[in-house]
Amino acid sequence: MSETPKKTRRVRFLPQGVEVEVDEGVTLLAAAQKGDIYINSICGGDGVCGKCRVIVRSGEVDTRTTMLLSRDEVRQGYVLACLTRVLGDVEVFIPEETRLEEGRVEIDEDAQRFRQFTGPARPVTELKCDPLMNKLCLQLSPPSMEDAEPDLERVYRAIQAKCDGIGELQAGFAVLQSLPAVLEQGEYKATATLGRRGAVTEVIQVESGDTSTHSYAVAVDVGTTTVVAHLVDLNTGQTLDAHATYNSQMKFGEDYIARIMYVRQNNALDELQQTVVADINRLIAVMAQRNGIELRDVVGVLCSGNTAMTHLLIGLDPARIQKSPYVPSANHVPVLRAAQIGLRINPRGLIYTLPSVAAYVGSDITAGATAIRFDEIDDVSLYVDVGTNGEVVLGNKEWMMCCSASAGPAFEGGGVRFGMRASKGAVEKVHIGRDGKVSCKVIGDAAPRGICGSGLLDCLAEMLRAGIIDRAGRLHPEAPGVRRAENGAEFVLVPRESADLETDVVINQADVENLIRSKAAIYAAVSVLVESLDLTVSDIKDVYLAGGFGSNVDVHNVITIGMLPDVPQDRVHFVGNGSIAGAKMALMSRDAYTLIESIAAKMTYFDMMQNPRFMEEFVSASFLPHTNVEEFPSVLKELPV
Amino acid sequence: MSETPKKTRRVRFLPQGVEVEVDEGVTLLAAAQKGDIYINSICGGDGVCGKCRVIVRSGEVDTRTTMLLSRDEVRQGYVLACLTRVLGDVEVFIPEETRLEEGRVEIDEDAQRFRQFTGPARPVTELKCDPLMNKLCLQLSPPSMEDAEPDLERVYRAIQAKCDGIGELQAGFAVLQSLPAVLEQGEYKATATLGRRGAVTEVIQVESGDTSTHSYAVAVDVGTTTVVAHLVDLNTGQTLDAHATYNSQMKFGEDYIARIMYVRQNNALDELQQTVVADINRLIAVMAQRNGIELRDVVGVLCSGNTAMTHLLIGLDPARIQKSPYVPSANHVPVLRAAQIGLRINPRGLIYTLPSVAAYVGSDITAGATAIRFDEIDDVSLYVDVGTNGEVVLGNKEWMMCCSASAGPAFEGGGVRFGMRASKGAVEKVHIGRDGKVSCKVIGDAAPRGICGSGLLDCLAEMLRAGIIDRAGRLHPEAPGVRRAENGAEFVLVPRESADLETDVVINQADVENLIRSKAAIYAAVSVLVESLDLTVSDIKDVYLAGGFGSNVDVHNVITIGMLPDVPQDRVHFVGNGSIAGAKMALMSRDAYTLIESIAAKMTYFDMMQNPRFMEEFVSASFLPHTNVEEFPSVLKELPV
Repeated sequence: MSETPKKTRRVRFLPQGVEVEVDEGVTLLAAAQKGDIYINSICGGDGVCGKCRVIVRSGEVDTRTTMLLSRDEVRQGYVLACLTRVLGDVEVFIPEETRLEEGRVEIDEDAQRFRQFTGPARPVTELKCDPLMNKLCLQLSPPSMEDAEPDLERVYRAIQAKCDGIGELQAGFAVLQSLPAVLEQGEYKATATLGRRGAVTEVIQVESGDTSTHSYAVAVDVGTTTVVAHLVDLNTGQTLDAHATYNSQMKFGEDYIARIMYVRQNNALDELQQTVVADINRLIAVMAQRNGIELRDVVGVLCSGNTAMTHLLIGLDPARIQKSPYVPSANHVPVLRAAQIGLRINPRGLIYTLPSVAAYVGSDITAGATAIRFDEIDDVSLYVDVGTNGEVVLGNKEWMMCCSASAGPAFEGGGVRFGMRASKGAVEKVHIGRDGKVSCKVIGDAAPRGICGSGLLDCLAEMLRAGIIDRAGRLHPEAPGVRRAENGAEFVLVPRESADLETDVVINQADVENLIRSKAAIYAAVSVLVESLDLTVSDIKDVYLAGGFGSNVDVHNVITIGMLPDVPQDRVHFVGNGSIAGAKMALMSRDAYTLIESIAAKMTYFDMMQNPRFMEEFVSASFLPHTNVEEFPSVLKELPV
Repeated sequence: MSETPKKTRRVRFLPQGVEVEVDEGVTLLAAAQKGDIYINSICGGDGVCGKCRVIVRSGEVDTRTTMLLSRDEVRQGYVLACLTRVLGDVEVFIPEETRLEEGRVEIDEDAQRFRQFTGPARPVTELKCDPLMNKLCLQLSPPSMEDAEPDLERVYRAIQAKCDGIGELQAGFAVLQSLPAVLEQGEYKATATLGRRGAVTEVIQVESGDTSTHSYAVAVDVGTTTVVAHLVDLNTGQTLDAHATYNSQMKFGEDYIARIMYVRQNNALDELQQTVVADINRLIAVMAQRNGIELRDVVGVLCSGNTAMTHLLIGLDPARIQKSPYVPSANHVPVLRAAQIGLRINPRGLIYTLPSVAAYVGSDITAGATAIRFDEIDDVSLYVDVGTNGEVVLGNKEWMMCCSASAGPAFEGGGVRFGMRASKGAVEKVHIGRDGKVSCKVIGDAAPRGICGSGLLDCLAEMLRAGIIDRAGRLHPEAPGVRRAENGAEFVLVPRESADLETDVVINQADVENLIRSKAAIYAAVSVLVESLDLTVSDIKDVYLAGGFGSNVDVHNVITIGMLPDVPQDRVHFVGNGSIAGAKMALMSRDAYTLIESIAAKMTYFDMMQNPRFMEEFVSASFLPHTNVEEFPSVLKELPV
C-alpha cells in the first residue's frame, strides 16, 4: 500500500516572522523546531509539562484538550504546541513565557551558576587530584630488531613509566586490534585514555598523536524530576558548562513509585531507560556543541541519582525496590561501557555510577554527603536534600543515619502553575512589603516567566508574614493581590502590565498546598530521625541544605516556612546540588570516589515509610511553620498576630 | 531467477552396504556424512590432506585431478571423496585406511594417552590447586526487612565468605540483570561461576540452584599443523577426554608464514580465524557429547600456541610478525569472552591465552617450559619442542634463551605419504631385524593405516641401522623391502598381504628427505644456540623433548637420527605435548599461570632466522646422524661400516 502524499502547509511564527513549510498533520512544536524557533518544552513533546503554550492566531489546526490550559486560556486561543497538528496554513504567536532564546536550547542558569560547588563552609583537607579517567600522551620508541616488544606491552610500559604505581592495566580486544595502525599512523606518538575500574586501570582507547588536551567527562545528577549535567575538563577539573532538563520519564509518572508500576504493568523497562538516556544525550550534545567539543572526546559519564533512577538508567528491573523488603539489584553498579546503555559519547567511554545505600537512599545522597565532607564532621550534623524525594542524613564522621520521604516535585517547579527551573526568566527572590507591594528578582535580566525553588520558598514565607496566607496555607480572599480565579483564589505575584507579559504570574491555592506538603514531608523526616536517635534539635550543630532551588536560597525563609528546624541561621548552609558536586569530586579524584564508597558503607538506613510517627509528624508539619509553633520561636516573633 | 530442482541420486557405500539419497552434485564426502559413515578427512574437505581416498566402483562422478593420488591409484579407481561430485547413481568402496570407526569422529589416541602429563621426571614442588575458573555453590539468606542487602552485594558477600582473600570482585551487566530472577528461582541457592582476570575475579554467571558439579574447561594447544584439546573437570583437575585434529588453516598454507601472506593478500583474517575456531568448536563439541556434558557447562577455554596461531585465533593482524623487526600485537593477550571470537561454549565463558615471548616463540613454549618446571632447574638444560616450527629453550631457573626454526610438519604426519597422527591404526614402533624383517606395533589393536611421529623416528633410525638408507638418506635400491615405484624408490614397511590391507604402507624417498629436513632444523637450532652461549653439548644436564610424536618415543632413535645431540640417553626425557600440559596446569592453578608469566618474562629471544650459522649447521645436520659423525660417538658404534 502506498501512502497518499501529504499536503504542504505554511506555518508563520510571530513575533519572529519566520515561515516554514511542513506536511499537513505535523505538530506546531515540530514546525517550530524546523524553523529553528526554540519553544519551552521540558517534557519533550508529550503533552505533560504544559510549557509549550502558543496562541493560534489564524488557520486550521487539530488540537487535543488538556487539563493544562484553563478555560480562559483556551478562549484566548492558547494551545499546547506539542498537542496541536497543522491542518491548514496557520499563524502562531509564541508568548514571551514560552520563548527560549534563539539559537540556544535551554540554558539552565541554576546549573550554570552551580558549576563551582560552594563547599561545606568550613576548612577541609583537600582530596588528591587523580581523575577516574584521563588521557595520557605517550612518546613511544619505534620497534627495532633490538626492541621488538609487542604493541600492547610497549604501550603498557610507557603508561607505567608515566604513572608510578598505576597497578594492573587491562585492555579490551578493540584496543588491542587497533594498535598496529594507530601506532604507525602517529609515528609512535599516541594518546591512551585510561579509566579506573576498581583496582584495575583499563586502557579504553589509544589514539594516534597527542589528543590529550581533548579529554572530557560529564557528571550527571539523574533526579526523578530534574536531570542536571556538568561538562568537566579532565585535565583541569574545570566545569566548562552545565545544562539541565526535566526528566522525560515524568510522562510515565510523577514519582518513581508510579514509574516502577508503569514498568511492571507495561513491561516498559527499555522504554523508561531510553527516555532518560535520550535526556542525558541531549544535555551532553548541547554542551558539546556549545563548547566546540567532539562527542568522541567525552570519554566518560559519572552518574549519581536515587536508587530507582539508577536502576532505570542502567536497565535493571526496579520492581523489587517498590515491594517489601525493598531489595535493589545492586548498590554498587559495575562500571559499564556508556554505549551499552545507549549513551552517545566516545563509543569506548565508560559510565560510572556512584554507590547507593538502600532502595530509598541513593548515590545522590552519598555523593552529597561526601561533597560536604561528612567524613570530617565531628559534631552531629544534618544533611537535607530536597528533591522529589527528600532525603535526610543525620550523624557525624563516625556514624550516619539516613532516610527518605516522598516530598513531591513542588520546589523543582513541578505541580506549581508557574513553577520552573532556576533558569532565565525565573523569579528567584521575592519580597512583599508591608504595603503588600511585591518586589521580585528575576534570573538573567529578563521578563519573569515563572518562579524557581528559591522564589517559591520566599513566596511562601513572605505571603505568610504579609498575612496573604494563614498558617494553614489558606489564601485570604481580601488580602491585597489576591483574587478569585476559575480554580479558586490566586495571588498575583507579577501582574502582566508590570513587565509587558502575556499573562500574570500567579500563585494559586493548589500551589501553596503542594509546597506545604513538600516542606512538611522534609520536616517530618528530620524530626522522626532526630527523635529516633534520642536527640533533639539543639544537638544538631550544622545543617546542610541541598537541592535544585536555584542559587539564592534565603535560609531565614526556609526556617520560616518550617521546612528545617529552628536552628540559628548561621548554622544552616545552603549547598546547592550536592549530588552533582559529589559526582564531580569523584570524577576528578579517585580518593573522593573511595570516600563516597566508605561513606555509603557507614550509612545506616532508617525506614521512614513503615514508621507510624512519620505520618503524625507530617500532619503536624502541614502548618506554617508547624502545628506546634513553639518549636519555632524565631519565626513566632515575626508572624502577624 | 528460480533454481532448477536438483535430481536425486543414490550412493551406495561398501563394505558397509549403506545407501543414501543425495542431490546430484554433492560430494562423496558429504554423501558419506549423510549416511553416518565416517571417512578420514583431516583437512575437513578441502582437497588438501589426501586422506579421504575412496574407490568408485560404478556410476558417474565428476572428480578433480589431484597430485595427492598416483597414476596407479587413479587407474585403480581411487578418487578423493571431497573432490568428487555425484552425477549418477554410484557405488563407492571405502578402503580400510580411509575408514574411521563407525559412530566416532576421530579419537586421538595420542591425545587420549597424554591426558596425564608424565611430568618433568624429577621431584618438583607442587603448585597449589586454585583453578583460573570455578563454580561456587552459594546458600544465600533470603532478604528481609532486617537484611535488605541488594542482590549483587549479597552474592559478593557469600563468595567472599567462601573464598578468603579473593580480592576484588566484578560482574558485568548481564549477570547483574539476571540476579533477581535467578536468585528467586533457586530460592536463594545459587551457583556463581568465577573467572580470574588478573588481580580481579569476575563473576561470569550466576545460576539457580547448585550446578557446581558441572564445571568444565578446555585446554587447547593450537599448533600450526595440529590442534589438540583436553576437556578438564574444574572440580577435580581430571582430564576427562582429549581430542585432536589437523589445523584446517592448512588449506591456506602449510606453515604460518604462508598463512600470514595469504591473510595479507586476501584480506582474510576473519576467514583464517573462523577456520581454526571451527576446528576448536568441533573438538569441544565432540568431547562434550562423548562425556554427556552440556556446552553451557564449559565455562572457559585456555589456549597455548605459537604467536602467529594466537594472533590468527584471536583475530589480530599477524602481518608484522612476518616483517622485520617482527613485532606482535601482544605477547599477553587480554582475557576475552570466548563468544567474542566465535567459540561455542557458555556464552559468558572466557578465553585465556598464555603469554608468548616473541614473534617466533609462543605460549606453547612458555607453557611447556613451565610444565617441566624450568623454574626449578639448577643446571643448564634443554627443552626442545618439535612441531611445524621447532622451538628450543636453553637455560636454567636463572636464565633462559630461546629460539625457533622452521622444521616442517613431517613428524606430525604432514608431507609424509603414510604419515598420520598417533591415533588408532598408526604404526607407533618399528623394528627392522638383521634379516630385514620388519616388526611394527600399531596403536589400538587395529590394522596399520599409517605411521605416527614415533614410528617415523623409529623408521629412520632402523632403516639407517639396517642399511636400507645411507647416511645421506638415500634408499638402497637393492636393500630388502625397497622397490621402484612410480615416483622413485620406496620401502615397504607393511605389505598389504600381511594385514589384509587395501594397500602397502610404504616410506618413499621424498618422505625420508622431509623427515631429515625436519630433524636437521631442530639440531641446527640447538647447536647454534648452545654455541652462541659459549657452551658445549657436555654442559647440558637434561634434555626435555616435547612434541606430538605419540607416546612411544624411543629416545635412543632420536639421537641415532641426530635430531638431538649425543647426550647420555638417561638424560633425555620425552614429555609429550608440553604445551597442553602447561595449559592444563595453568587452568587448574593460578600459581602455575603466574609461573608461566614469570618464565615468559625470563626468556630471552635469540633470532635464529637472521643467523648465518644456522644455515651452515642445517646443511651439516642434513645427514644421519650428522656430517661430523664424530659428534655422535654412541651412534657411530651402531652404524653399518
